[in-house]
Amino acid sequence: MTGRTSFSVLRSRMSPESQAQAHEKSLALKGDMALAELRRAMRLSQEELAAALNINQASVAKMEKRTDMYVGTLRRFIQAMGGELDIIARFPDRSIKIDQFGDR
Amino acid sequence: MTGRTSFSVLRSRMSPESQAQAHEKSLALKGDMALAELRRAMRLSQEELAAALNINQASVAKMEKRTDMYVGTLRRFIQAMGGELDIIARFPDRSIKIDQFGDR
Repeated sequence: MTGRTSFSVLRSRMSPESQAQAHEKSLALKGDMALAELRRAMRLSQEELAAALNINQASVAKMEKRTDMYVGTLRRFIQAMGGELDIIARFPDRSIKIDQFGDR
Repeated sequence: MTGRTSFSVLRSRMSPESQAQAHEKSLALKGDMALAELRRAMRLSQEELAAALNINQASVAKMEKRTDMYVGTLRRFIQAMGGELDIIARFPDRSIKIDQFGDR
């Protein structure tokens, strides 16, 4: 993660009021989302996320429009927002977490 | 999905005894798994999964060794076993299902 600024670092630079608002907002999250919706729900701009990922804003915009990407790329995107990626294989009687992709 | 044989079709060709065993086995699934472990737990051979995916056994073997792959590829792999892929962004206070990658 060298050279990256995580969301938690970005958040620590926010005022206590903004932090509280961000927390309230995150509690209100629900339903399925695309990456851009999730970023907005976390009250992050493309520029902020780009800084956290050490890429430029245009690259974030491009990623948010993709309909497929590598699991590793998706994981870094979500981690930059302060989250973790879980890959779940869901069967009628059980759900299994797949741990083959960089989370072992 | 043209040309593919799903796991449910494969399973319907199994004897009732094998079906019951497979079901029992799936109920016993637990913990995190790599794709090869999951396949074995579902009592599928690489050949059977290859047939369901319309690829050859060597390609299945190769996929099972990969530490990164496209979300779409992973989804097809899991669907061929009769499951669905869920992509979850997990935050300390909430988990969000990401629906951007071919499941909308």
